[in-house]
Amino acid sequence: MSTSAGGLIIRQEEPRNLEFPFDRLDSYLTPVESFYIRSHFHAPTIQPDSYRLTMDGAVKNPFAITLKELKSLPGKTIVATLECAGNSRVFLVPQRPGAQWELGAVGNAEWTGVPLATLLDRAGLNRNAREVVLEGADRGLPAELPRPPEAISYSRSVPLDKALDDVLVAYAMNGSDLPQDHGFPVRAIVPGHYGMASVKWLTHVRVLEEQFQGYWQTIDYGFWDEVGGIPVRRPLSEMRIKSEIARPSTFEVLPKGRTYTIYGAAWCGTGDVVSVELTTDGGRSWANAKFLDPIRPHGWRRWNYDWEIPDRPGRFTLKSRAKNTVGESQPDEFNERYFSYVVNHTLPIEVVVQ
Amino acid sequence: MSTSAGGLIIRQEEPRNLEFPFDRLDSYLTPVESFYIRSHFHAPTIQPDSYRLTMDGAVKNPFAITLKELKSLPGKTIVATLECAGNSRVFLVPQRPGAQWELGAVGNAEWTGVPLATLLDRAGLNRNAREVVLEGADRGLPAELPRPPEAISYSRSVPLDKALDDVLVAYAMNGSDLPQDHGFPVRAIVPGHYGMASVKWLTHVRVLEEQFQGYWQTIDYGFWDEVGGIPVRRPLSEMRIKSEIARPSTFEVLPKGRTYTIYGAAWCGTGDVVSVELTTDGGRSWANAKFLDPIRPHGWRRWNYDWEIPDRPGRFTLKSRAKNTVGESQPDEFNERYFSYVVNHTLPIEVVVQ
Repeated sequence: MSTSAGGLIIRQEEPRNLEFPFDRLDSYLTPVESFYIRSHFHAPTIQPDSYRLTMDGAVKNPFAITLKELKSLPGKTIVATLECAGNSRVFLVPQRPGAQWELGAVGNAEWTGVPLATLLDRAGLNRNAREVVLEGADRGLPAELPRPPEAISYSRSVPLDKALDDVLVAYAMNGSDLPQDHGFPVRAIVPGHYGMASVKWLTHVRVLEEQFQGYWQTIDYGFWDEVGGIPVRRPLSEMRIKSEIARPSTFEVLPKGRTYTIYGAAWCGTGDVVSVELTTDGGRSWANAKFLDPIRPHGWRRWNYDWEIPDRPGRFTLKSRAKNTVGESQPDEFNERYFSYVVNHTLPIEVVVQ
Repeated sequence: MSTSAGGLIIRQEEPRNLEFPFDRLDSYLTPVESFYIRSHFHAPTIQPDSYRLTMDGAVKNPFAITLKELKSLPGKTIVATLECAGNSRVFLVPQRPGAQWELGAVGNAEWTGVPLATLLDRAGLNRNAREVVLEGADRGLPAELPRPPEAISYSRSVPLDKALDDVLVAYAMNGSDLPQDHGFPVRAIVPGHYGMASVKWLTHVRVLEEQFQGYWQTIDYGFWDEVGGIPVRRPLSEMRIKSEIARPSTFEVLPKGRTYTIYGAAWCGTGDVVSVELTTDGGRSWANAKFLDPIRPHGWRRWNYDWEIPDRPGRFTLKSRAKNTVGESQPDEFNERYFSYVVNHTLPIEVVVQ
């Protein structure tokens, strides 16, 4: 096991989609160089001096703000785990289209910026304001049909109450300027939501009086809910509870009759993670893991568990299962209404004991 | 030219998708046997005695009504042109996926039934009622991704004000029971909207307090509008103004130096058609056609134009262009934001003069 930073797995060369090798998990905060990169289009180059964030739509006083002005406003630093909605897609059978992420399209970092509420307050919301669209400077033609006829910019909305609650307009990651691949100079951080909500290269915030039906919340990054038994398409939003085993990794060879410390992390979008259980016998029995990190809002908790490896060679399937304070527990099976997203069922890690 | 009824063009054998050969246009009302058939799934067989229409959702008094009861309520007969949103798709270059409809996925019929408003009034709308979902008994797995994981029924919503205005719960077509392929025993008729709104085999009406995001108005039968420069997906609804040339047909051979009566029909979703112009010289000059039918709300108007065919052989491209009372005029080019729907630009009909 190496604990050096960096060394990402390439899932797509361009636009850049790189994954953290999750078996290298070693610290509470993911180093910037090890943080997974999920980009929809070529990363735009933005000169900090000419950067402007435009606030408009259903507001009384639309305005644009420079990076310098933004940094002069009262700032805030939070920890937030970001997980790509497609993380662990490679576990799905049959295989689904999209990047074949294993376990590492997730990271936990410290983000510094200005609360979006501060900027919305300055703009003055209209009475019927309902959603807030976050638009990035990255542009292109989406891959899937039905798609708009021309290149569009990446954008997502958050409900107004979320925007006013804890969304951050961030300009620093783990205490340094954002790297280009993470949205330099400014990105949104939407704590508790899948990563697609935390729009990078954020240049435009538009307040709407209607439900936003953008490409990345109707066609992509959507799921099938239902109303009165009739399926309806809704945008993905809060992360579902999940734990992952970082070590051992798939087909790792372990010595029989010894103690091995299984190690991983767990997180969720609402509530706090309060337990992680492990099974090493295919789900017949479960035992509690120990937490290495305290509860912090929207930050993950690492955990470990000392496994007494049986004194016989063979193959064993390990699974972890997290629970949280709002009654969520990882399911046994993938929920097909998410098609290729929200892969938060108990994931099997098969190891070889010799 | 034959004027016998029936004789439809097969676009898909099963589910049944049949087109009216538009060069046979001969009457104001399209005979039932000649009316185009657009089905998404196998046509369900519904016994009239066991038929029930369920009214529920955001209402005070949900109820179910039998066919007999429905027919005993005060009825209404209207004329309405239904056009499939994909009509004339075959004119698109490059070719788009979907049935390659020419000109005949459109028809004009008389529909008899009970105003949806009567049933909604009986159910008693909740104060926050906003949309009305029309659900059919036909079920299956939609063709395109992203789609729900299991078979679903065909459903569409109409805004509440439209539902209360003129939507009909129809049990007769041109004075007779609906044929099975047209929704027996009961279908919706949404006057002025593309045909996809007029749900066949209607068995469930559900009132919602939210915007309905069903498959057939987000994934399929949607288009790309924009808000503040950002594309947003919206459901297709009102038919856009359109005229079509029924005769002559493509590559029809016409005698030079004679008079030929070009003949067709025109319709729109809002307002009334007030003019149809013809060009026989590729758009350099336009001349007015004469109407054969008066204005009737939501009914098409047939028209004709006496063309003095030039006294020289050659190929000529004919186009017609309709205008209506609300300022709509057929565009010269297809609008790509509709991708494979709303093909209402001036369609070229090339003929051979000898």
